[in-house]
Amino acid sequence: MSSSSNRRCAACKQLRRRCPSDCIFLPYFPPNDPQRFSYVHRIFGASNVAKMLQKVEEHERGDVAESLYYEAHCRIQDPVYGCVGIITILHEQIYEFQCQLVKVEAEIQAVKARLGHLQPQFP
Amino acid sequence: MSSSSNRRCAACKQLRRRCPSDCIFLPYFPPNDPQRFSYVHRIFGASNVAKMLQKVEEHERGDVAESLYYEAHCRIQDPVYGCVGIITILHEQIYEFQCQLVKVEAEIQAVKARLGHLQPQFP
Repeated sequence: MSSSSNRRCAACKQLRRRCPSDCIFLPYFPPNDPQRFSYVHRIFGASNVAKMLQKVEEHERGDVAESLYYEAHCRIQDPVYGCVGIITILHEQIYEFQCQLVKVEAEIQAVKARLGHLQPQFP
Repeated sequence: MSSSSNRRCAACKQLRRRCPSDCIFLPYFPPNDPQRFSYVHRIFGASNVAKMLQKVEEHERGDVAESLYYEAHCRIQDPVYGCVGIITILHEQIYEFQCQLVKVEAEIQAVKARLGHLQPQFP
């Protein structure tokens, strides 16, 4: 492999093209992590990923790449629900916490009422 | 508009093509909701959406379309984090609930200990 192909980002490597110095993918899809680009390419397509990166400010692009990779990874793991499956699970967990909290708060009120009933006898 | 174009699904309408009777999009992207297809088309691309629908069992395709629409909608609302932003918020809420629960449980233990200290004096 030539030194020039080693400098290509993971996207240009996979798309078998020259990687320009101002390549939109280069900072976010390094050649040492080919799976990262492969995943977003499979789910969103290279041109959509490029569009989504270009649409935001440069300092936000790292987060765009990271969140797209997360979504793509989830969709590959769970082809039916993708990361929406995770959102459903988290909503269920929050509902369980809310129920638990209501129960514990009722318990604390009951114990406090009992304590209030006992305390007046100790002036 | 001819009656044949009225029968086209939202995808075939947007892609300006004939809608075959076995169109993969037809059951999940009805013509009366053009935004639904427009969103997934913008984020994933029509061919990726078709691939993702074809990849799963027929009874799961409604959920695929729904979750892709949800993801696309989130990405359009929040171009940096998409629905991963929602996952982050939900994780933060769960962390807050856990802290609240630990605090309330400590409180209940303290009140119970106080109650235990008072009760022996009432045989």
